[in-house]
Amino acid sequence: MNRLEQLRKVMKEKSIDIYYIPSADFHSSEYVGDYFKTRKYISNFTGSAGELVITQNEAVLFTDGRYFIQAEIQLKDTGITLLKIGEPDVPKLPEYIRTKINEGEVLGFDGRVVGVKTGLELKKIVEEKKATIKYNEDLVNIFWKDRPNLPIGTAFLLDDKYTGESVSSKLMCLRKTMEQYGAQSHIITTLDDIAWLYNIRGNDIPHFPVILAYTIVTLDKAYLFVDNTKLSNKIIEKFSTDNIEIKQYNEIYNFVKTLSGAVLIDPQKINYALYFNIPENIVKIEKPAPTILFKARKNKIELENIRKAHIKDGVAVTKFMYWLKNTIKTSAITELDAKEKIFSLRSEQENFIEESFDTISAYGKNAAFMHYSTDPKNPVLLENKGFYLIDSGGQYFEGTTDITRTIALGELNDTLKTHFTAVLRGVINLSRAKFLEGVRGINLDILARGPIWELDIDYRSGTGHGIGYLLNVHEAPNGIRWKIVPERNDSCILEVGMVTSNEPGIYIENSHGIRTENEIVVQEDVKNEYGQFLKFETITFAPIDIEAIKVEMLTKQERAWINEYHKNVYEKIAPYLTKPEQEWLKTYTQEI
Amino acid sequence: MNRLEQLRKVMKEKSIDIYYIPSADFHSSEYVGDYFKTRKYISNFTGSAGELVITQNEAVLFTDGRYFIQAEIQLKDTGITLLKIGEPDVPKLPEYIRTKINEGEVLGFDGRVVGVKTGLELKKIVEEKKATIKYNEDLVNIFWKDRPNLPIGTAFLLDDKYTGESVSSKLMCLRKTMEQYGAQSHIITTLDDIAWLYNIRGNDIPHFPVILAYTIVTLDKAYLFVDNTKLSNKIIEKFSTDNIEIKQYNEIYNFVKTLSGAVLIDPQKINYALYFNIPENIVKIEKPAPTILFKARKNKIELENIRKAHIKDGVAVTKFMYWLKNTIKTSAITELDAKEKIFSLRSEQENFIEESFDTISAYGKNAAFMHYSTDPKNPVLLENKGFYLIDSGGQYFEGTTDITRTIALGELNDTLKTHFTAVLRGVINLSRAKFLEGVRGINLDILARGPIWELDIDYRSGTGHGIGYLLNVHEAPNGIRWKIVPERNDSCILEVGMVTSNEPGIYIENSHGIRTENEIVVQEDVKNEYGQFLKFETITFAPIDIEAIKVEMLTKQERAWINEYHKNVYEKIAPYLTKPEQEWLKTYTQEI
Repeated sequence: MNRLEQLRKVMKEKSIDIYYIPSADFHSSEYVGDYFKTRKYISNFTGSAGELVITQNEAVLFTDGRYFIQAEIQLKDTGITLLKIGEPDVPKLPEYIRTKINEGEVLGFDGRVVGVKTGLELKKIVEEKKATIKYNEDLVNIFWKDRPNLPIGTAFLLDDKYTGESVSSKLMCLRKTMEQYGAQSHIITTLDDIAWLYNIRGNDIPHFPVILAYTIVTLDKAYLFVDNTKLSNKIIEKFSTDNIEIKQYNEIYNFVKTLSGAVLIDPQKINYALYFNIPENIVKIEKPAPTILFKARKNKIELENIRKAHIKDGVAVTKFMYWLKNTIKTSAITELDAKEKIFSLRSEQENFIEESFDTISAYGKNAAFMHYSTDPKNPVLLENKGFYLIDSGGQYFEGTTDITRTIALGELNDTLKTHFTAVLRGVINLSRAKFLEGVRGINLDILARGPIWELDIDYRSGTGHGIGYLLNVHEAPNGIRWKIVPERNDSCILEVGMVTSNEPGIYIENSHGIRTENEIVVQEDVKNEYGQFLKFETITFAPIDIEAIKVEMLTKQERAWINEYHKNVYEKIAPYLTKPEQEWLKTYTQEI
Repeated sequence: MNRLEQLRKVMKEKSIDIYYIPSADFHSSEYVGDYFKTRKYISNFTGSAGELVITQNEAVLFTDGRYFIQAEIQLKDTGITLLKIGEPDVPKLPEYIRTKINEGEVLGFDGRVVGVKTGLELKKIVEEKKATIKYNEDLVNIFWKDRPNLPIGTAFLLDDKYTGESVSSKLMCLRKTMEQYGAQSHIITTLDDIAWLYNIRGNDIPHFPVILAYTIVTLDKAYLFVDNTKLSNKIIEKFSTDNIEIKQYNEIYNFVKTLSGAVLIDPQKINYALYFNIPENIVKIEKPAPTILFKARKNKIELENIRKAHIKDGVAVTKFMYWLKNTIKTSAITELDAKEKIFSLRSEQENFIEESFDTISAYGKNAAFMHYSTDPKNPVLLENKGFYLIDSGGQYFEGTTDITRTIALGELNDTLKTHFTAVLRGVINLSRAKFLEGVRGINLDILARGPIWELDIDYRSGTGHGIGYLLNVHEAPNGIRWKIVPERNDSCILEVGMVTSNEPGIYIENSHGIRTENEIVVQEDVKNEYGQFLKFETITFAPIDIEAIKVEMLTKQERAWINEYHKNVYEKIAPYLTKPEQEWLKTYTQEI
């Protein structure tokens, strides 16, 4: 009996007519641990986004354009039909369920992995059809014998010299906001907000230094729901001084049943099961979790640290470019070799913990895939021509980094140079922006994208995403894109201390991909009768390949910017290089 | 007994405890006729925005920062207190009413001049306080003996050679949208939408060539509610061929009581009285009136005409600049003389009907007031130095124009030139924009504003507003500003054929004001795998004063743009000038 058949058998036993399996964990995380990969277990499909709906006669997978080809291959012989989101005649998932469910039937799912927004939409549909929902049904768990364990990582305290703010101060600010909202308690379910609030980090999820936990903060106490094997005595003692009580991880689902007084929840984040375990008579104040903005505004000490992290990262990337440009002349290098090289160079840096995401190491036409992943079994060989793109980053005690450089490995034709220079102009124009308080990323995106639109080309992504402090490399609520995408929640007003990536690109299918990515921080500029002006400070330092620049495409100001930038790169990075590397860097940061 | 006392007496007779007087007409018009100036009649206050609330003991006027000084002077000895909107401790109007109204009391107003949104807010407050509303109370009318009549203008038909689309075609499109929305009928109350739909224009309101009317369109018929003395037999005959029935202007308030089937209304536009006259059991479909978008997308014939109107307007403005630059050397010219001169030059143009708004003619520091109005009793003399600003426009059969030029009258210091050039850079950068379908004004504003923000300066207005076709010079829903202002409804997705002004500026109090304003039309550019690219066509042609430009501040592309622009100005305008004017224009459009 295959897995789908096993699931259908359990559905029958439990009287569930339709079963829904999304891709999330209990915390709306961007990356999830293996324990949570139920959808992959049933369908074989490994993409990052995909949702299953199963009945006794039908089984379908919804996924989007990024994964159509991959899903078709992986679904083969599973009995699961692919539904291509966005294609004509393909209904949205709730609509699909509406057409399948009949009066008196039951829709089942594990309410812990379903967001409350989707859940409420399904509830409405199901009730209209006079059917019902069972939301405490992790059916796959019943027959998934070798299911991976929940992550058993351990937590560590992050010293105030890194965080710049004590837990008691953070709790005080949070409680002040709760009081403004009239809330007696606040449920936080997102792992990075919890790590930020309690100044802890962990290793439950690769690239994402958090531990699985929930928390409830009241006006005088806090409860942390976490497997206590993750916590050392030192941490527990520290927590007790801040009046933080430890409870078992899953205990929160019962605990919320005992809440009294208004509760503040973030409807974008809380899961359906937790939401419906809150007693009905409790007032729910639904607002974005205040910690989202608190942690986005990096404080002065965090920023000092982040600058240090970027120097280390710049040293690794500069050494990498030196190595690559020289080695390619004489030795065979694969995408995989290059990926390992950048990892080893970062590992040499003090306080490096891990990579902040899986490095994108892409030669030539492979770089046209924005999220290319090199196949370790068939490593592609770099050649002595064209572009190589590397997008990588590190987690350091001093913060999280994310940098992309596109490197000329030899001859470049005119198109490649033109595209490279247009992307560079985008980076420069956004870096040089000066703007009034109140501006959002949607107001600024054209600065980076305009020079690329001028060439009749677009990149199908935002220009920038927020970045955490030793946390998620994609952190809301700041970002730079031209359309508001509500579910991304990344179009907030830009505030001092917010760190965002600046990464326009050009991706030409079957030909090449170019991206140049720096990180920028919002800083104060002049304040006068018009208001507070703001500007960006660029904090990433590594050469931008001058061999690929068509100088005549740059304005005077743009040229001045790149020369000034390279001067700073040399000053900040050279002290950490060998003599030959320094000489190389001198050449590659010369005025153009 | 003064007017306020008279009003209070009538309030007592009618058992109304609080009486509310806003500034609107029955149609949410930007400009209103004298008949509607009730607030001015009671308070003396003549500003364009202000609202009165009167009780037996208190009378207050709410107005905003533009009018604080003026209101203080005009309210003197009226017994009315000024409440400055935005100042600390000044409540919003509904909040003020909440604190004043008591259980069992009555709030009265003329529901025809109150928007449904405000009205519903007041209704909620009043009901919470267990008070009631009387909304059919035009109390001032009872004792306003010499009240001006409702405008008695006449309508004229606008030929299809100007409109580019017949009434029957417009009705067909509108009905298609009504059917999509499931509406059986649609109430339109805005005068420009009605004028557009029925290809008529009129002269009921200065600068705004419409007639007072309402309409209800059903799926097979249409009713036009209008004083029929405004309509010639020819128009009535034409209407009957389109199955448009004429009814008396005020008859609509009873007619809507007889509606059956779902009705489409625009909650931003309909007045409170009309809204509440619709039977409660009728389904109200609340959406922006479809005609708003229809009329914003100018068709090919309208655009051809608009281009012609702009040539005529450019000729008038060019002749004006020639006259001003030459005459100022030898003769005394006042702001008023200049204003009359531009009017007389426009009047010489074929098919000119009237000015599209009251000309702003401002010398030196006066130009720092964005909406300066010269005092006819104390006309200010222009001097042989500094800047003079003229913002003016025309209504032609071929469309509506709006243009601003800032003209050097002699010596300019470096600051003036720097500011002029920054404003010009803003105009150029927005004009040169290329962008994907889906972009809104909020995405583009930084192009015009960025060069001014670079100088630590801002202008406190949007960069551009939509413009009608022989209609309102401020026409929604397109516009260019960096913050969405919901009540302005001017941040729609930019579509082919939309006409917008491009008018960044710099306004330095007590010193100078600079604005350069062209009109731009959205046009198609390349369509490829990334989507439909769009661009702007600049349709305003008059010299931008090269004596004020600091050439070294311009990039190569900006310089190329201004030279190309001036080349076009010469080609298009010179044929309509005298020889000396042509020679002058040659000099003022030379390459820089």
